Amino acid sequence: MIKTGIVGGSGYSGAELIRLVAAHPQLQLEVVTSRGEAGMAVAELWPSLRGAVAHAFEAPDPHRLASCDLVFFATPNGTAMAMARQLLEAGVRIIDLAADFRLRSEDAWQRWYDMSHACPELLAEAVYGLPELYAEAIAKARLIANPGCYPTATILGLLPLVEAGIIERDGLIVDAKSGVSGAGRKLANGYLYSEASENFHAYGVDGHRHQPEIRQILEAAGGSPLDLEFVPHLTPMVRGIHATAYAMLTDTSVDVQALYQDRYRAEPFVDVMPATAHPETRSVRGSNLCRIAVHRPRGGRRLIILSVIDNLVKGAAGQAIQNANLMFGLPQTTGLTSVGEVP
Amino acid sequence: MIKTGIVGGSGYSGAELIRLVAAHPQLQLEVVTSRGEAGMAVAELWPSLRGAVAHAFEAPDPHRLASCDLVFFATPNGTAMAMARQLLEAGVRIIDLAADFRLRSEDAWQRWYDMSHACPELLAEAVYGLPELYAEAIAKARLIANPGCYPTATILGLLPLVEAGIIERDGLIVDAKSGVSGAGRKLANGYLYSEASENFHAYGVDGHRHQPEIRQILEAAGGSPLDLEFVPHLTPMVRGIHATAYAMLTDTSVDVQALYQDRYRAEPFVDVMPATAHPETRSVRGSNLCRIAVHRPRGGRRLIILSVIDNLVKGAAGQAIQNANLMFGLPQTTGLTSVGEVP
Amino acid sequence: MIKTGIVGGSGYSGAELIRLVAAHPQLQLEVVTSRGEAGMAVAELWPSLRGAVAHAFEAPDPHRLASCDLVFFATPNGTAMAMARQLLEAGVRIIDLAADFRLRSEDAWQRWYDMSHACPELLAEAVYGLPELYAEAIAKARLIANPGCYPTATILGLLPLVEAGIIERDGLIVDAKSGVSGAGRKLANGYLYSEASENFHAYGVDGHRHQPEIRQILEAAGGSPLDLEFVPHLTPMVRGIHATAYAMLTDTSVDVQALYQDRYRAEPFVDVMPATAHPETRSVRGSNLCRIAVHRPRGGRRLIILSVIDNLVKGAAGQAIQNANLMFGLPQTTGLTSVGEVP
Amino acid sequence: MIKTGIVGGSGYSGAELIRLVAAHPQLQLEVVTSRGEAGMAVAELWPSLRGAVAHAFEAPDPHRLASCDLVFFATPNGTAMAMARQLLEAGVRIIDLAADFRLRSEDAWQRWYDMSHACPELLAEAVYGLPELYAEAIAKARLIANPGCYPTATILGLLPLVEAGIIERDGLIVDAKSGVSGAGRKLANGYLYSEASENFHAYGVDGHRHQPEIRQILEAAGGSPLDLEFVPHLTPMVRGIHATAYAMLTDTSVDVQALYQDRYRAEPFVDVMPATAHPETRSVRGSNLCRIAVHRPRGGRRLIILSVIDNLVKGAAGQAIQNANLMFGLPQTTGLTSVGEVP
Repeated sequence: MIKTGIVGGSGYSGAELIRLVAAHPQLQLEVVTSRGEAGMAVAELWPSLRGAVAHAFEAPDPHRLASCDLVFFATPNGTAMAMARQLLEAGVRIIDLAADFRLRSEDAWQRWYDMSHACPELLAEAVYGLPELYAEAIAKARLIANPGCYPTATILGLLPLVEAGIIERDGLIVDAKSGVSGAGRKLANGYLYSEASENFHAYGVDGHRHQPEIRQILEAAGGSPLDLEFVPHLTPMVRGIHATAYAMLTDTSVDVQALYQDRYRAEPFVDVMPATAHPETRSVRGSNLCRIAVHRPRGGRRLIILSVIDNLVKGAAGQAIQNANLMFGLPQTTGLTSVGEVP
Repeated sequence: MIKTGIVGGSGYSGAELIRLVAAHPQLQLEVVTSRGEAGMAVAELWPSLRGAVAHAFEAPDPHRLASCDLVFFATPNGTAMAMARQLLEAGVRIIDLAADFRLRSEDAWQRWYDMSHACPELLAEAVYGLPELYAEAIAKARLIANPGCYPTATILGLLPLVEAGIIERDGLIVDAKSGVSGAGRKLANGYLYSEASENFHAYGVDGHRHQPEIRQILEAAGGSPLDLEFVPHLTPMVRGIHATAYAMLTDTSVDVQALYQDRYRAEPFVDVMPATAHPETRSVRGSNLCRIAVHRPRGGRRLIILSVIDNLVKGAAGQAIQNANLMFGLPQTTGLTSVGEVP
Repeated sequence: MIKTGIVGGSGYSGAELIRLVAAHPQLQLEVVTSRGEAGMAVAELWPSLRGAVAHAFEAPDPHRLASCDLVFFATPNGTAMAMARQLLEAGVRIIDLAADFRLRSEDAWQRWYDMSHACPELLAEAVYGLPELYAEAIAKARLIANPGCYPTATILGLLPLVEAGIIERDGLIVDAKSGVSGAGRKLANGYLYSEASENFHAYGVDGHRHQPEIRQILEAAGGSPLDLEFVPHLTPMVRGIHATAYAMLTDTSVDVQALYQDRYRAEPFVDVMPATAHPETRSVRGSNLCRIAVHRPRGGRRLIILSVIDNLVKGAAGQAIQNANLMFGLPQTTGLTSVGEVP
Repeated sequence: MIKTGIVGGSGYSGAELIRLVAAHPQLQLEVVTSRGEAGMAVAELWPSLRGAVAHAFEAPDPHRLASCDLVFFATPNGTAMAMARQLLEAGVRIIDLAADFRLRSEDAWQRWYDMSHACPELLAEAVYGLPELYAEAIAKARLIANPGCYPTATILGLLPLVEAGIIERDGLIVDAKSGVSGAGRKLANGYLYSEASENFHAYGVDGHRHQPEIRQILEAAGGSPLDLEFVPHLTPMVRGIHATAYAMLTDTSVDVQALYQDRYRAEPFVDVMPATAHPETRSVRGSNLCRIAVHRPRGGRRLIILSVIDNLVKGAAGQAIQNANLMFGLPQTTGLTSVGEVP
């Protein structure tokens, strides 16, 4: 059994991680921390876990965490980087669900996240935890930067086109929609039921932190710079991300549907739907799948890619487990086989 | 492996059954029928099941079903009774998720369901599939009447009091609230998103079919007649039932909290919460649990029992699997260990 | 024109009051206060009011408010009582939407609200602002205690029975359900979209502040003590209260439907529906109406009364306007004629 | 008073029209028809209208309708065209909320709507009822084609750019999101609460009827052909459309914010928000407003236009009333001054 710690168990990604770890045949939960709820039983904060988890939250303690084989950080940005060096030195592998290690450039990171980085020397070592792109590196990594929810849906949606180099590098547009749990358990008026329900709006139109993350990975995958507009929207549901991406084909002779099917044939968590499909977020609710459909209206140059995930599973905790499986030599699907409930 | 058929796979209980059977280690899906969707792939109707279920819907055919060890009926009332005799004679065990075999009295059944019964001679043989009350009989049964969703939440909420004979037999009130999926996949204006959302109302105040079902079971458990008012309400959520039951203690010396804990100590799917708790429907969403809390305001004679289930799991498909486990000698929890996702 | 002030314009009742005052032909908005948002344009906080209200929030200042003819308090409990004496002395009439003046007994108030009362000598003078019961006193009052949302729905539902003295005084049960806006703009986890959506639960089962308020009014109306159990529930919608009340007839010869129709014939904001109806909360969304239906299942002694309001209109701001109309000699319906939007 | 008929009062646009007409000081409701509900009281079908409307539905009868001054059609496509000629000959003015007269080209109409047109000779006479563009023609018209909901939000969002001729004519993208009431009162699985809630998906990616309507109007306004991709999505809320439009500036010296403010300064129902704003659909819920914000990220050539309306008001019934006001010489805002409720 792999001794597992979770730092930050009182947020939504943390709760989902606890649930998945508790059900995982090889991960054994050792420590769950929460600075604010230390001493409280996990199942008191999250009654859905009554009977499934007997642990109480502890205050975060690096010495205690150092006894784990694997530590997940489901914390605000800036937390993992404060403990990473110490834990790595103790031989612990780390998966950070926040953004501390997602950007390669220290400058860019500090600009977008508005704080200085505590261990910039680890940025080069950290592996971006998107198994469909970096499975080999993940298997050998000590430190994983688990991707953001929007980047996961967006990158998986555009990757085959970018790798094949068959779209214009300018004018890419990603119009993305997220359920409210994407904001985490943040106490702000806009996330109250009375204000988020029966309401739809864009936000961050003039710049969102997930844009440089998306560009960095797609540019690396495509080998050249990209111009990409990313516009997120808040939609009145709890879970789910729907990315609608608009690209322009440079080579109209390509069978794009076949390209996607080939690219993802071996990937257990990417489901390329038939060409006429409109994937629904509820079809992946609670599952680790990304469902994608490719449209080419009227056979023209314009492509429209629809991509859906559950932001808390493939967009956070599920993908973190998938990374852990790779790091410890387990089948990628271990502990991740549950199928979404419908309705 | 137990060869399993599902009659009626295009409704919500049917979809949930398919999902649970597909994940069950001992049940093997042989046949899924849908009169309306015959020929269509199951995963085309329910895209959440893509990759999990390869079957196509078939038209219902008794000969084909007779090759199964076990057949679930997730059909409208009146369907199971038309095939039951033939399948039982072929040695098939039957679990009916509809109401065909829930009432012992043919007269009462015909009055409440407004049709004549096709095999009244089976009413006495059918076992009411509430494992917390009839586990032994279920284990030996050929034919199970799977309880209604409201009755499951209500009966489990009141059972310890009725069995102990410590409440007044008159003036019981059950004020129950259900999510919209309780109505099934029924095309009626009131279930449209635009009309069920941001709306709350009672229905069937003057008489609901679940009332005689509840009375029959509680009267059998308590050994004497009961007077019980049952008022259902429609609440704007997909899954979940919350029953609020009001009873009057006749013996105020009883430790009611201890009574409930003792009664359900051995039951894997009933969770008695602490005395001050208010169980939330989302804590059981997707799980087979019933969570109960007992309140006795100001230490008086009045008891208020709060009981929650997921209407499609413990209130339908999950309870059906629990019954199947008992019928085939498996642990009750086989295939039913998943924990509800929160949020 | 009646010079009008609103203290506390950054909460939901405050926003609704601003909207209603802005559209009222006789009320002229002079001052809107918000301690936290002082200086900000009202329409910046509430973009729905862009073009309708040009005011900015001010810090609350008794001298400024003393220039008004009428001041509404849409503030937390304990705010109105701190300014009431000073404003009354300046000749201002006051309508408090919070609870400061709702209970006649200082002791009871201090026990339920857990603070000492700043002007107990005003408790006897304050008039409970339920126009269907106290219209004459309201017309002459200087100080109105605007009723709570639950009490409005509950009292209007039970009033004809209590006044007629035809129900048992023991064993009354009110099972009430509220939309989330009933909690106000309160930043707490349970009111976040991700936690209130797809969820239903009871709260305050062991005691809720609206219970003594309901009892006080009904006991005064009926002339004798009442025993009443009040259980509130949170339901996943923004606006709406549904009270389901259970009472036992002592005189079965009464035509209860006629009793209700007679009692409310002259009331513009109470709509007695046909005997078989199930009123829906959405039918009163945005309107000042209370819709009531009376059920007597199987012609027995048990009565079930269904009563719905919009908690922010008839349960708060709309009722406050109705009181203001009475206080200033206007028709009760002035500025309150809008019909709820459906769907 | 203007004698008014409504054909099709049992759908959502019809219900909203009845509500608005009932509150309108100059329109007097004479006839409301519904083939399916003939004989039923309007307020029985729509309890929100109890006390506001005393009419009963009638079967549609051209002779009866011919006695009106004005007839609204809130019917499925193909209904208005069957009665239009007869009513116009009788001197009745017509506003069709469906699509019968929206396209100038009979060929295009028949291709997109898949039926032959009953009175193609009226296509040239019909005026497209977008008051912000065609107020003068509307004032003189006998026959109005009331715009679709998506076209209203989209055209108002792009009009200033197209009229000014400062964007590229290729590569326009409109990513639009609609609440479920946009589909009308249509009984289909996808619009059931249990399937539309907690779900988000695109539809009609390969072609939607509103695309040619948008192109026709914008091309007429701009004087040259446009290439425009239109992708609609279904979002889990009842009312509201959010259009996110992507355009490329050809002239970066233009002050786009000023352009919008100038263009709409005189329009009572278009609200240009500050440059950094993100309009929310709930801010226009129940009102006839279109709120627009213009973004130009990083000062580049890319423009992102956000535009929100209530699909049943400015996107249907409210706009129809606005057109009626123009046709009968009333101020545009007559009967349309209500402000959206928040929350």
